[in-house]
Amino acid sequence: MKALRWHGPRDLRLVDLVDSALQPGEVRVRVAYCGICGSDLHEYVDGPHAIPVDCAHPISGRRAPLTLGHEFCGTVVESAALEIRVGARVAIEPEYRCGTCDYCRQGQYNRCISMGFVGLMGDGALAETVVVPAYTVHDLPDEVRFDQAAVLEPAAVALHAVRTSGLRPGDACAVFGMGPVGLLTVAMLRQCGAGEIIAVDVQAGRLGLAGAMGASKIVDASREDSASAVFGATSGKGAAIAFEVAGLQATIDSTLACLRKGGEAVLVGLMGKAQIDVFDIVNRELRLTTSVGYRDVFPPLIAWTAKGLIDPSVIVTRKVTLTQAVPQGFEALISDKDQVKVLVAPNGEDVR
Amino acid sequence: MKALRWHGPRDLRLVDLVDSALQPGEVRVRVAYCGICGSDLHEYVDGPHAIPVDCAHPISGRRAPLTLGHEFCGTVVESAALEIRVGARVAIEPEYRCGTCDYCRQGQYNRCISMGFVGLMGDGALAETVVVPAYTVHDLPDEVRFDQAAVLEPAAVALHAVRTSGLRPGDACAVFGMGPVGLLTVAMLRQCGAGEIIAVDVQAGRLGLAGAMGASKIVDASREDSASAVFGATSGKGAAIAFEVAGLQATIDSTLACLRKGGEAVLVGLMGKAQIDVFDIVNRELRLTTSVGYRDVFPPLIAWTAKGLIDPSVIVTRKVTLTQAVPQGFEALISDKDQVKVLVAPNGEDVR
Ligand SMILES: [Zn+2]
Ligand SMILES: [Zn+2]
Repeated sequence: MKALRWHGPRDLRLVDLVDSALQPGEVRVRVAYCGICGSDLHEYVDGPHAIPVDCAHPISGRRAPLTLGHEFCGTVVESAALEIRVGARVAIEPEYRCGTCDYCRQGQYNRCISMGFVGLMGDGALAETVVVPAYTVHDLPDEVRFDQAAVLEPAAVALHAVRTSGLRPGDACAVFGMGPVGLLTVAMLRQCGAGEIIAVDVQAGRLGLAGAMGASKIVDASREDSASAVFGATSGKGAAIAFEVAGLQATIDSTLACLRKGGEAVLVGLMGKAQIDVFDIVNRELRLTTSVGYRDVFPPLIAWTAKGLIDPSVIVTRKVTLTQAVPQGFEALISDKDQVKVLVAPNGEDVR
Repeated sequence: MKALRWHGPRDLRLVDLVDSALQPGEVRVRVAYCGICGSDLHEYVDGPHAIPVDCAHPISGRRAPLTLGHEFCGTVVESAALEIRVGARVAIEPEYRCGTCDYCRQGQYNRCISMGFVGLMGDGALAETVVVPAYTVHDLPDEVRFDQAAVLEPAAVALHAVRTSGLRPGDACAVFGMGPVGLLTVAMLRQCGAGEIIAVDVQAGRLGLAGAMGASKIVDASREDSASAVFGATSGKGAAIAFEVAGLQATIDSTLACLRKGGEAVLVGLMGKAQIDVFDIVNRELRLTTSVGYRDVFPPLIAWTAKGLIDPSVIVTRKVTLTQAVPQGFEALISDKDQVKVLVAPNGEDVR
């Protein structure tokens, strides 16, 4: 089977691999779609970051070179797990977990001490088939299309961030950064009963999508001060919760500045060290919450998508084949900011 | 009546003032004890910080020169408020509030847009008598001594911080900085059902008091790495909640480092800008909560003190007269780190 393997920065190789034998508790999935994520780009441009190079990952047993791709869905073609039948249409929740550490035993499996992602710490789904642990598999109802199911993973990041926050129905929320996760955060806030939903970015195309996802107010931070705009959109009160999904000092500053006293900043974007004005945040009793990965959110996401309450596929801007994945996927996402989510169809499903 | 007035840094003057007439809703209190707080020292050493100099405070109508002192109790000697009787023994919750802003109307009066402290933004209790709004007055049962009641204010800061946190019974907690508020945070955690309570400081005297307040483990950060010590005291798990009550970059670093994944840092200490490693805190899903002032906590504190469940007066290391307040109070607190809480008795009650 064909797979796109990371060998080093700017070195993704399309290779032919022999199918490995399944271990007990594993299933083989024929990939329908696999999205390209910002973290894949990060590995492509100047990795390794999360990819294990010197030591194998404790759960996957794998290290570089390995196959990227963690946002995916498909059909089970082989199963070594009793509860999973061949032929099932499935979405994958691609978090490895040990099942025995303190965090796993408390159900906080996204905090597992050996946590890792399929497609970053083990072989992923930019390939015709992928082998995953049975515990990552969620059945898809017929109502959920594959191009929707492939976007459940970034939607899970967004929903976990919203669930981690102290959101109460009617709360005014701001979201900074309209990349895939930011756009999906807007959609989750809409679905979860937020009041005003203020979307902030500097790019017209992404801000247009934010409107389609349910934002009630669009703020172009290249044209106006975003924190002032949030106060303007909330009768001078400020946001109750603001999500930072850009991972930049300037957006962290705006995320904190736009909050009402007692408000909450949810940090989702990754970056290195940031400066925080402790005097200011203590005096305004702000809270900084953080969110990484997800847990327990694939079932509601699948149900909402099946019912038409959300449609994660709205952010898909292009579908390509495995052969096209580097030039029309990775490279396009770097050079063309109008590309938001590119899906790769390794088996040629519905490519346009 | 005699009062100790702030005229400028290192310029506190003991002066004789004429009693002002009460406005409706005000009461006059004969001061039994008034504690000297870190913020008073801050104003004394290199103020003004919170003291209004150019414009009068919107609620108190006062600006410098003014009388310091916000940790106090005493006896009502004159009342222009129907519900408060002359002769009542009272503790004062010294937060001015407007009563009409969004925060006040939601009961979050410590976030009032005009919030200020009696004794910093208006005349305080380093004086024989003090005039306060009736809404700041809490009756004291006979079981609560004045030297306990004068320490209710820093205890309120500590209890509000604990209430702001997500503490659940049995949670392992660490407290960094054994000044008055840190010591009282240890006592509040003990009273509120925390599990392990790990007290961190660099001074033997203060760490000894921490044991008396209920700490289950004492860590001298000048002798061992405090975060490692917290992991050691929690079977390698880390703290669920850690309170930063020192306001230093190094203690913020340790406060974050000692937490388990999903843990919470509560920032109480004030400082300027701090560096935070966003990559680290997001990946460990840490939460940073902040706490300033207090609300709704004087009634339980008074009840707990009356029942003997807590004794805030344990941190009192000296009692002095108004004449002694500068040399044996302010100056002693700066030069002698064995002094923790100095109470001033402007009317000569029980000075030793
Ligand atoms: Zn685990
Ligand atoms: Zn107010």
